[in-house]
Amino acid sequence: MTGTAPAPFTADDYGARMERAARAAADAGLAGLLVAPGPDLVWLTGYAPTAETERLTLLVLAPGQDPVLVVPALEAPDAAKAPGAPGLTLRDWTDGYDPYAATAALLDGRLRGGASAFPEPPGRFGISDNAWAMHLLALQRALPGTSYASLTDALPMLRAVKDAAELELLAAAGAAADATFEEIRKVPFGGRHESDVAADLADLLRRFGHSQVDFTIVASGPNGANPHHEVGDRVIERGDMVVLDFGGLKDGYGSDTSRTVHVGEPTDGERRVHDLVREAQEAGFRAVRPGVACQEVDRAARAVIADAGYGEYFIHRTGHGIGVTTHEPPYMIEGEEQPLVPGMCFSVEPGVYLPGRFGVRIEDIVTVTEDGGRRLNETTREMVIVD
Amino acid sequence: MTGTAPAPFTADDYGARMERAARAAADAGLAGLLVAPGPDLVWLTGYAPTAETERLTLLVLAPGQDPVLVVPALEAPDAAKAPGAPGLTLRDWTDGYDPYAATAALLDGRLRGGASAFPEPPGRFGISDNAWAMHLLALQRALPGTSYASLTDALPMLRAVKDAAELELLAAAGAAADATFEEIRKVPFGGRHESDVAADLADLLRRFGHSQVDFTIVASGPNGANPHHEVGDRVIERGDMVVLDFGGLKDGYGSDTSRTVHVGEPTDGERRVHDLVREAQEAGFRAVRPGVACQEVDRAARAVIADAGYGEYFIHRTGHGIGVTTHEPPYMIEGEEQPLVPGMCFSVEPGVYLPGRFGVRIEDIVTVTEDGGRRLNETTREMVIVD
Repeated sequence: MTGTAPAPFTADDYGARMERAARAAADAGLAGLLVAPGPDLVWLTGYAPTAETERLTLLVLAPGQDPVLVVPALEAPDAAKAPGAPGLTLRDWTDGYDPYAATAALLDGRLRGGASAFPEPPGRFGISDNAWAMHLLALQRALPGTSYASLTDALPMLRAVKDAAELELLAAAGAAADATFEEIRKVPFGGRHESDVAADLADLLRRFGHSQVDFTIVASGPNGANPHHEVGDRVIERGDMVVLDFGGLKDGYGSDTSRTVHVGEPTDGERRVHDLVREAQEAGFRAVRPGVACQEVDRAARAVIADAGYGEYFIHRTGHGIGVTTHEPPYMIEGEEQPLVPGMCFSVEPGVYLPGRFGVRIEDIVTVTEDGGRRLNETTREMVIVD
Repeated sequence: MTGTAPAPFTADDYGARMERAARAAADAGLAGLLVAPGPDLVWLTGYAPTAETERLTLLVLAPGQDPVLVVPALEAPDAAKAPGAPGLTLRDWTDGYDPYAATAALLDGRLRGGASAFPEPPGRFGISDNAWAMHLLALQRALPGTSYASLTDALPMLRAVKDAAELELLAAAGAAADATFEEIRKVPFGGRHESDVAADLADLLRRFGHSQVDFTIVASGPNGANPHHEVGDRVIERGDMVVLDFGGLKDGYGSDTSRTVHVGEPTDGERRVHDLVREAQEAGFRAVRPGVACQEVDRAARAVIADAGYGEYFIHRTGHGIGVTTHEPPYMIEGEEQPLVPGMCFSVEPGVYLPGRFGVRIEDIVTVTEDGGRRLNETTREMVIVD
């Protein structure tokens, strides 16, 4: 990702997000949020520095205060062009000066500024998961009274609930992934390397508008039994099951879908496993509605597979959130009690992995509506036969 | 960067690097090093996880102990294929378990194991600059007795001295960048957008073997006066000075060179500024020899420009290190007293930036030899006239 995010959001949209984030921070008992370059910063400001360097770039958000972006002087002109820049005060710094002292003064000011809201300033800040350790250590040293929590710990749902414009972009990314599947099912599989089909998938995703391809898993025959197998030199054979799992970013928002195809006619046994995973995926999808805990989606899908005696072969969680990244909270996993909220968007992707034989995974992106769920992937979930 | 690094290093090479790093940590009074995915991990093990995720991957190095790589179970098969894997113990962990507790136990063991070397275990670890804040915070919580320093603070020269094989790869990357310049000087400049020439540069770098293009700066006319201008929509005109600054990674090692060309015949004034920068670059290069402090290279180049009355127009440091990244220590900057050591590799790139008019920058990668410096870029430093 370079320059500014292509998503069609206005300065007002970004301003509203920053205000909402600052409010959520206050509700969580935080004095503020420290946002590093990456998905959090893109989502809040539309700003994505050309290169992530050792030079400190940090957005400081605090309730009732104007957002401030600490930025290297040389990058300030680029930052000023970001769509969210009108809502930001840029605090630039030059090589040779100490950006941490400047940031510390800012945080210290925040603590004082927040005094009425926090009579005993907690001195606790949320910080982007992927902020560099180097920067965090320097802040800890510059401001010994402060403490820090990662955003995943402190505000895991910060980006989880999507607005209407975001949902449209996610739906468009999903449609592009579906168009990719409709084309890939027509290409020859048997006799080609997994890596050849993966290259086709990447080309198709780009042709249908993706600017970034994050993964193109092609896992044939026994490779399919390893859910993390990406792609290899194996030649796909007639009679193989092939797990396809692909996605990336289109106009700044993610796609992620899986279908499992068969080269030629499947056996009855293969068909039964595929049907089972399809039923599990359907059960997971049907569990989606506002107020239900994330773990219930996992349980619903898992129960179908466990009841059929395949429980030990479903070896990963049922899903993960998606937005400006292809992999983020909320997670559909046992123990996650976060209730679903309309606008949340995540994968429902149960699988069965039979060591040495094959695997099956079926995955749609699902968004929570007022009264249930809506799929953003609509290609057939029946087993597709390929050549 | 995906999969494993392509550089031709053996498990023994990586083993030697890990041992050297652990020894350097001990010399610096550290109980060990915590190495995150990124350039440090590539350099030490050849392992580059496909995607950087929220799941903890961390190499633990400590003097007198076997290196341990904490890695998500799903990624362990990939990690086991890394060229440095034979020298590693893989400690894998599964979704739902706490990888920080496992790592903490490991560090705690390191503290105890290191008891003879450190009668009072300092409990201080070096950690990769770019390790995620989320992981650092979790370790700080899991092991309250420990403290941490970024590798840039604790061991800035860890990767700075290159061995013979690394120097060969850097020289090959430099030769590919030189070949790129020899081709780009033949293409038309006048009447084309900066972005068109930048696209040509990227194509050429790839054609000459780069797997990753990090920057392709084309800064024409007044844009050249902003040293951080990357590229824009400006149409290059006859009579423009054009700063070209480009590089990336070839076989896992970096290139970075700048030349300033002129569209048609330059004026005498333009020629004088170009000559001045060339002399400054030459002076910086001539200052390079073992034992000299980094800042002396900056001072030597800067003195030439300052003596000519242009001191205020040279607004950045003179150079930066290069290796498995295009931007790393050592830095050629006032205040850096680190002495040069044979095998160090860095840029020498003075410039003059005249606001509203034009800029000139000339840059070579230079490596320190036993008795001086050797340039890894060899295209002419005379002003080249383009069409």
